[in-house]
Amino acid sequence: MIDLRSDTVTLPSDEMREAARDAAVGDDVYGDDPTVNELEARAAELVGMEAALYVPSGTMGNQIAARVHTEPGQEALVDVQAHVYKWEVGGFAQLSGLQVRAFDAGESAVPTPDQIREHAREESLHVAGTGVVCLENTHNARGGVAIPKADIDAAAEAAHELGIPVHLDGARVFNACVALDEDPNAMVENVDTVMFCLSKGLGAPVGSMLAGPEEFIEEATRVRKQFGGGMRQAGIIAAPGLVALDNVDRLADDHENARVLAEGLDAVDGLSVPTPDTNIVVVDSEDAGLTAEEFVDLCEGVDVLGGPFGEYHTRFTTNLDVSRADVEEAVERVAEAVQSQ
Amino acid sequence: MIDLRSDTVTLPSDEMREAARDAAVGDDVYGDDPTVNELEARAAELVGMEAALYVPSGTMGNQIAARVHTEPGQEALVDVQAHVYKWEVGGFAQLSGLQVRAFDAGESAVPTPDQIREHAREESLHVAGTGVVCLENTHNARGGVAIPKADIDAAAEAAHELGIPVHLDGARVFNACVALDEDPNAMVENVDTVMFCLSKGLGAPVGSMLAGPEEFIEEATRVRKQFGGGMRQAGIIAAPGLVALDNVDRLADDHENARVLAEGLDAVDGLSVPTPDTNIVVVDSEDAGLTAEEFVDLCEGVDVLGGPFGEYHTRFTTNLDVSRADVEEAVERVAEAVQSQ
Amino acid sequence: MIDLRSDTVTLPSDEMREAARDAAVGDDVYGDDPTVNELEARAAELVGMEAALYVPSGTMGNQIAARVHTEPGQEALVDVQAHVYKWEVGGFAQLSGLQVRAFDAGESAVPTPDQIREHAREESLHVAGTGVVCLENTHNARGGVAIPKADIDAAAEAAHELGIPVHLDGARVFNACVALDEDPNAMVENVDTVMFCLSKGLGAPVGSMLAGPEEFIEEATRVRKQFGGGMRQAGIIAAPGLVALDNVDRLADDHENARVLAEGLDAVDGLSVPTPDTNIVVVDSEDAGLTAEEFVDLCEGVDVLGGPFGEYHTRFTTNLDVSRADVEEAVERVAEAVQSQ
Amino acid sequence: MIDLRSDTVTLPSDEMREAARDAAVGDDVYGDDPTVNELEARAAELVGMEAALYVPSGTMGNQIAARVHTEPGQEALVDVQAHVYKWEVGGFAQLSGLQVRAFDAGESAVPTPDQIREHAREESLHVAGTGVVCLENTHNARGGVAIPKADIDAAAEAAHELGIPVHLDGARVFNACVALDEDPNAMVENVDTVMFCLSKGLGAPVGSMLAGPEEFIEEATRVRKQFGGGMRQAGIIAAPGLVALDNVDRLADDHENARVLAEGLDAVDGLSVPTPDTNIVVVDSEDAGLTAEEFVDLCEGVDVLGGPFGEYHTRFTTNLDVSRADVEEAVERVAEAVQSQ
Repeated sequence: MIDLRSDTVTLPSDEMREAARDAAVGDDVYGDDPTVNELEARAAELVGMEAALYVPSGTMGNQIAARVHTEPGQEALVDVQAHVYKWEVGGFAQLSGLQVRAFDAGESAVPTPDQIREHAREESLHVAGTGVVCLENTHNARGGVAIPKADIDAAAEAAHELGIPVHLDGARVFNACVALDEDPNAMVENVDTVMFCLSKGLGAPVGSMLAGPEEFIEEATRVRKQFGGGMRQAGIIAAPGLVALDNVDRLADDHENARVLAEGLDAVDGLSVPTPDTNIVVVDSEDAGLTAEEFVDLCEGVDVLGGPFGEYHTRFTTNLDVSRADVEEAVERVAEAVQSQ
Repeated sequence: MIDLRSDTVTLPSDEMREAARDAAVGDDVYGDDPTVNELEARAAELVGMEAALYVPSGTMGNQIAARVHTEPGQEALVDVQAHVYKWEVGGFAQLSGLQVRAFDAGESAVPTPDQIREHAREESLHVAGTGVVCLENTHNARGGVAIPKADIDAAAEAAHELGIPVHLDGARVFNACVALDEDPNAMVENVDTVMFCLSKGLGAPVGSMLAGPEEFIEEATRVRKQFGGGMRQAGIIAAPGLVALDNVDRLADDHENARVLAEGLDAVDGLSVPTPDTNIVVVDSEDAGLTAEEFVDLCEGVDVLGGPFGEYHTRFTTNLDVSRADVEEAVERVAEAVQSQ
Repeated sequence: MIDLRSDTVTLPSDEMREAARDAAVGDDVYGDDPTVNELEARAAELVGMEAALYVPSGTMGNQIAARVHTEPGQEALVDVQAHVYKWEVGGFAQLSGLQVRAFDAGESAVPTPDQIREHAREESLHVAGTGVVCLENTHNARGGVAIPKADIDAAAEAAHELGIPVHLDGARVFNACVALDEDPNAMVENVDTVMFCLSKGLGAPVGSMLAGPEEFIEEATRVRKQFGGGMRQAGIIAAPGLVALDNVDRLADDHENARVLAEGLDAVDGLSVPTPDTNIVVVDSEDAGLTAEEFVDLCEGVDVLGGPFGEYHTRFTTNLDVSRADVEEAVERVAEAVQSQ
Repeated sequence: MIDLRSDTVTLPSDEMREAARDAAVGDDVYGDDPTVNELEARAAELVGMEAALYVPSGTMGNQIAARVHTEPGQEALVDVQAHVYKWEVGGFAQLSGLQVRAFDAGESAVPTPDQIREHAREESLHVAGTGVVCLENTHNARGGVAIPKADIDAAAEAAHELGIPVHLDGARVFNACVALDEDPNAMVENVDTVMFCLSKGLGAPVGSMLAGPEEFIEEATRVRKQFGGGMRQAGIIAAPGLVALDNVDRLADDHENARVLAEGLDAVDGLSVPTPDTNIVVVDSEDAGLTAEEFVDLCEGVDVLGGPFGEYHTRFTTNLDVSRADVEEAVERVAEAVQSQ
């Protein structure tokens, strides 16, 4: 079975498992867990922020950020394909009373300064003012697009000129950094806060980091408590998270494997696959007369797992449990399956 | 002064004022106000619904409808130019925990069945399902577009096939009916609920009606109480509202005046004005080198009042306090002002 | 029929009706209604606040105040018998994300400084901090208790020392002022905001005033818009509201009538009725073997209307449509009905 | 250092650490984690419910339960000392739009059927109806009171007769079962849902279980996702949780140690300590002239850690990292410190 459903499915390495077993722990709700404290310090440093907070999921990190940046009755400005808008169960509205203003950022996956100026709204008697701009890098739903630092900076600057803070959903921000050969510190230096996942390409079993100014993180800690994200001897899962931080450089392998997979599948008659920026491969199977669901079923029949990603689009995600041989094998199996249907 | 800012500025007629003075009243929170009861019965009949509720504003009517139709954590599907999304202070999110999914319905101002099917979302572990579709007729921000019954019906049918209820923001639904020579009953027969205003083209001083099935209106009455819209001897304002219902036919005059105004202004060098469907005239002053704010100021200088409606667009709204002579005079004054700047 | 259900049932006087007919009006959403503007100015002056806002109901006034004073995730500190807690449909939680901390203020109907210090909570990682203290004067559910200025002041001072703002639900604050011979200005000089009703003892058909600092009222105006309380030519109902302000002094008649009613009913075998401070009379019918519902039915049988107010308690409220002769007649009828059952 | 601050501070055993290292894992968001699945199945069986859900904290379990049981605008009926009301950051209001109705359940720590009938409220035009009753066993803030099954049953029956579901905050429900020699299955058989913690007396590093009917847990899974509690290879922490389930019987040692601690401290001049039901010891230091903060400081000076629990009350909690010798030593140190101050 070659599991390409998501980079969230990666299994922890032996080193991570040993780290879990041996972690020095304490009650993190009291701030007493040395491993969590170390992880938060390293995470903050990695992205050049004052402080960081360990949270059970990327969704919680994003939802906390939205809550802390805004007041209810404001708007969050996001790309229409943003994870926070599509796949976070309507949390912005229900958890923070926040109206989403979504617009189509297009293939670049990042709003231009003009788009931000156009869609940002000034509070008035009738109008909900913009309280936060959310960016996403890499951009998942647009195919793992790696957004250059210059574009992030330009968007952030446009928002800041309007007095609006910027949160970066950086679930896979290290994929972007590796793909673009950009230092993480530099990549996020102009956004106000960033969330990144330990549990996707980096391979940790559980957890994400929310980083930002100290005062922001202090308030975020309260919101985490309210959401039920305050954990006790969390060092047990923070320890593999620390190990995961060493996996940043090897994301290049995932990207290379994704490229091989994309090229291989694109060569199959009826499939159309753009070259990926990072580790997300999106296959268009319309010309093969296959809906996404049919194509996913076909692949599953040859023990290759992916996920539907639109009516005719399917997502495959390379990850640290998938080798070069695996993707070559996957191409072969899928090609044969498509041709013989 | 010729006030074309909005049809909300109309002053009550003597007949309405007499009606206010002479109204039979009671405590409407106890259901004891005969005038309110009569108004609610007539309103329900007018739009062919089981029941209706008197509310202090169109915004409250729409916000109540959204609350009653949905559960928090769902989505409302609306045109990106909808009043409920642009000008109701983010109420859907803050009052009902409702995520807005807005898309561009285009110049027709009404979603096609395909658009509804495309943007409606089925609830899943990650996804906020669609809880209501909101339509708007006439469509204010798109220039008072009168949407034909067939299009409303098609959109409603598409929503219903997905199990989604449909609310019509019919603040100016009688303008649509008059413009299209459609019976109000027929116009809304396929939506689940409709809000219409007594206080715009119909000229009542205060109030709107929310109409729908009996059970819906019962729950709406509770929500109105929570929002603080339960009023006591409301017959005093319901009485002019009853008079206002006689003003439906005369909306044709406003439309005719709007046509005259539009044609007159379109003939002015530098102004571009499409022929309006109803009583809303939108002037593009870009070719005259005037932003909306500059154009509005220029008009105000010659005692003609309008309102900015985008960067280069200005809205004028004819209403029952504006005569044919007024609009002809307005054209003359604005033409001269533009030419002599 | 002698209607003592509530002072909300009063019918507008001829003078009020004339005022409604003749009101100078404009679009209040644009700030153009001279009558509303005059009413807001007079209301602010009457209670010695910088500004005031006309709202359709007392509930809306209280709900707006809570929203503006607090942030979601805080607590409102209130007496367990407060109107805002018992009869406003859970609005604090649903409209403002506000947790209510209710405690028993006892018969004095106002928290002591010690009670405020005991129940106020300081924000911490686990704890929702207190965001507002709500007082109520007169206190409806405790039988129209008139709370002396000194007690209001002491409670307000205790709250302010903790940095907590104070809102007064003064739906019937003029009843308290008249009963205690206190100037309204002095009565509320130490609270931050006050809501009072035009539509109860003062007899206006519709509306309440929310008064406070200018900046507060500005934000309150936005919240009113979101709740749907922004009305157009509201002068039609503001005008009778202005007339109602002249009714303050005559509340003494209601109090005297209430005293007569209470003493008369207390003399009836099986009924126990404390002497009222103001216009609310609470009858305990347990010794007569009558539940509140049974007693209310019995009274209705002799054309005297009241309302259940607990298992064995019934509320009668005197008001400007009820004369001395009416209450004497009511006593007679009820006495006979109780004795002959 | 003898750490008696809370039973949340316990360190995972070697067996738990090995279990973490060796856990079979998968992506639990896809339902693919066999260890989580096993834990959820065992937890459900342990409390005799159809299904269970693993959540990062007890707070999240309680907050999810409140969300799923109710609709916004309802009330939750709780003891005034309940954890959900005092220490969950106002979550009921902000996360679920739920008004809390708290009353004083008294020393028994559980509402009587009469109290439930008295405080439950039927929905009406003005009234927020009761949507859920929350019980807590053992009751933390009242000193670890173990509530007998009969009292839980009586409360649940009273609620159910009114059509109101019952959630049990059973963070320490096994302490109650052990103290009362009651089978967990029997203890909760009449409540609808129960939350219990793996991370307190049972000693797991992270996590709690929410158990209830299958349909309830399905909806709870969605809410967990929205709150950000969906975790990936959560088996790493679920595995120690499974080990923790074997710790139920040894809670008896904590209780015995708590009794020894309480009796020892009660013998100290100036301290007053009731005999605890379970593992929570509450010391009253008022007669020693010590506020809770002073007493906690004094204890910390002799390396004994506790937590303030009111103005003159301090909480000590025995747990699996505290031996009989430890509590005897603690008594000795504290006694000397109090006597020599």
